[in-house]
Amino acid sequence: MTDFTSQFQAVKKSSRKLASIGDERVQDILFDLADLMVNQSELLIHENQRDLARMEESNPMFDRLLLTENRIEGIAKEMRQVAKLPSPLHLPLEEKVLPNGLFLEKITVPLGVIGIIYEARPNVTFDVFSLALKSGNGLILKGGSDADYSNRAIMSLIHQTLQKFNIPTEAFLLLPADRTATKALLEAVDQVDVIIPRGSQGLINYVRQHAKVPVIETGAGIVHTFVDAEADLEKAKAIVHNAKTRRPSVCNSLDCLLIHEKLLPSLPELIQPLLDCGVKIYADEKAFSSLPEIDLIQHAKGEHFGTEFLSLQLAIKTVKNLDEALEHIATYSSRHSEAIVSENQENLNRFLLEVDAAAVYANASTAFTDGAQFGLGAEIGISTQKLHARGPMALKELTSYKWVVRGNGQIRA
Amino acid sequence: MTDFTSQFQAVKKSSRKLASIGDERVQDILFDLADLMVNQSELLIHENQRDLARMEESNPMFDRLLLTENRIEGIAKEMRQVAKLPSPLHLPLEEKVLPNGLFLEKITVPLGVIGIIYEARPNVTFDVFSLALKSGNGLILKGGSDADYSNRAIMSLIHQTLQKFNIPTEAFLLLPADRTATKALLEAVDQVDVIIPRGSQGLINYVRQHAKVPVIETGAGIVHTFVDAEADLEKAKAIVHNAKTRRPSVCNSLDCLLIHEKLLPSLPELIQPLLDCGVKIYADEKAFSSLPEIDLIQHAKGEHFGTEFLSLQLAIKTVKNLDEALEHIATYSSRHSEAIVSENQENLNRFLLEVDAAAVYANASTAFTDGAQFGLGAEIGISTQKLHARGPMALKELTSYKWVVRGNGQIRA
Repeated sequence: MTDFTSQFQAVKKSSRKLASIGDERVQDILFDLADLMVNQSELLIHENQRDLARMEESNPMFDRLLLTENRIEGIAKEMRQVAKLPSPLHLPLEEKVLPNGLFLEKITVPLGVIGIIYEARPNVTFDVFSLALKSGNGLILKGGSDADYSNRAIMSLIHQTLQKFNIPTEAFLLLPADRTATKALLEAVDQVDVIIPRGSQGLINYVRQHAKVPVIETGAGIVHTFVDAEADLEKAKAIVHNAKTRRPSVCNSLDCLLIHEKLLPSLPELIQPLLDCGVKIYADEKAFSSLPEIDLIQHAKGEHFGTEFLSLQLAIKTVKNLDEALEHIATYSSRHSEAIVSENQENLNRFLLEVDAAAVYANASTAFTDGAQFGLGAEIGISTQKLHARGPMALKELTSYKWVVRGNGQIRA
Repeated sequence: MTDFTSQFQAVKKSSRKLASIGDERVQDILFDLADLMVNQSELLIHENQRDLARMEESNPMFDRLLLTENRIEGIAKEMRQVAKLPSPLHLPLEEKVLPNGLFLEKITVPLGVIGIIYEARPNVTFDVFSLALKSGNGLILKGGSDADYSNRAIMSLIHQTLQKFNIPTEAFLLLPADRTATKALLEAVDQVDVIIPRGSQGLINYVRQHAKVPVIETGAGIVHTFVDAEADLEKAKAIVHNAKTRRPSVCNSLDCLLIHEKLLPSLPELIQPLLDCGVKIYADEKAFSSLPEIDLIQHAKGEHFGTEFLSLQLAIKTVKNLDEALEHIATYSSRHSEAIVSENQENLNRFLLEVDAAAVYANASTAFTDGAQFGLGAEIGISTQKLHARGPMALKELTSYKWVVRGNGQIRA
């Protein structure tokens, strides 16, 4: 087994210098790299083709893996946007003078070294680099083996740019694309401050099982929308349709519609736009009886509740009242995004207060759970845990803080 | 093996109601409990005596375990202070209106359920309860077996008070004092949001190795103070003496003095107050040569650097300049508390910027790293990791946040 310790230590050590690069210089580096990747798009596409040649075109990952001129332009544009965001470093969070004259400041600092484990999406390599550099963090990347040629080519452009600006390249490490490297990363307690897995539930479970380093879990969204008795049906139709069909493969898409039993007569109208899009419905007894007998509509089984479909499928559960909806959500939600559609203010307020999720919505589509939509300027993932960061994570969420204490000889009694 | 799942689920479920108790009622509960523990101090002391009867008086844990009338009064006083702190819940962290009219609020919410694993200190049971209730969190406590009679008596007073106020007692669970319970707690991924171990490095290592639930590591402090060439010797003497001898057994106490080589001639004077207190010194070659030959002063061995002594022992390392001091600290520090004594502003600023620790001090004793000293009003532990909370943790650090999104039918394009 390869020993990565010395490489990890080099990342840790060189990462200490990143916080003092200065944000103007960080901007210059990112603009320079954005230009370079466009200029070198031929090279990137060439290496990307070597990856693609090993994959069937019918594989759903093929499209995620693919780099084109247009996509590279898009990645470069995003990098320039990140470059221009305000620096998240050295911001004062608190200031106080103690009675003994000690002056305390709580200021933001980089987390240190961030480990990212991800699958075959080469754009992530650029995205994560720009966020890490901007927030003064070193980076250890473990990409998918399917994208290894692409990732190596991207990393070589990154290192080339860093060298030009005299920044230590060792602070940004791309690991070999094998499980040995993953395991070493997960156990690098003294060298890595946090690991963020980006990918399938299987990957996230593996990371949770084996990590000794703190992890921020991202991704899995088992998302509900409760259409209350006093819902505006037109709003409900649009919101449910948007949340389910806009991009079914992403984590904020709708998985389970909760319908107040009083609204069952309107259920056929409510879900007609879904049926028009070919959404397969798993309806509980009461809902099933209210719906036409067509192939797209089937009886729900237990397993359909609490499932993240990531495709054109939807479970429907009938509830007697708000309490039953809250109970169902508390039981099955992954605490990502949850919505209520209602014109009853009291119910809206109770839902927003009592539902425990990263984002809770009143009369809006859950499709908005996203760093760019929330005005964070970027996104490194959507946290589904409560520690450190919840919901969309961007630059601020890649910082920690420290207490800076200035005295003139104070001692404690 | 006992199955704790249903008990954990009951904690999780009933904890959801805690955020809406209302802070006035929380205050009433804590005041009531403070009175009750004083009224029932005879009972508490009786049960505590049963624990003490199983321990040798010479055991250093004996004093930590001991409850007296005075100590109970002290615990009650602290509980009343926590009661009066501002509520950390439902505070707006951010507010924005998006161009499409969506109104976003980022507000503080409880973490959910907090697991605490601690050793034979019964006062922790009361302390942690008041912080958890005040921050709306459910609690699963795993205390040391040495304190089990005391902890059961304390928990019964807590439950008695909760019942009186009609708060679900299931939200606050004291586990049996055995390793089976610890293991179950560490693996309760869906029921527990964070585990905070309080105790020895051995306990913390065990938790890190076995936890599947997110952990906040607390405690271990390998603390340095660098006395620079341009230090004010009187300040340095007082600061070093205070940091080492005020309470040697706590985590913010000094472990290693870094001395600029130009100051070696003043080293005997600098450490005289330590010798007067019986501090055993492990000096590197250069420092050793500058010091008198007495029993308390020995040659440092490799193991003396990077050691948390928690007693009247101190390592001394001579450095050529600030860079060497920074390098030593980066190598051996546990990133808890680090100090510089100097009158050189440039060196002070570099030290405060470049040293990576929860608290960095210029010309002050590291003994100030403490929740109460920093004005947090209480303390549940001192985090030595960078995720979520760093340094002293109190009420605010026991919260997460959620995004509350109010719309009127918005869907995403």
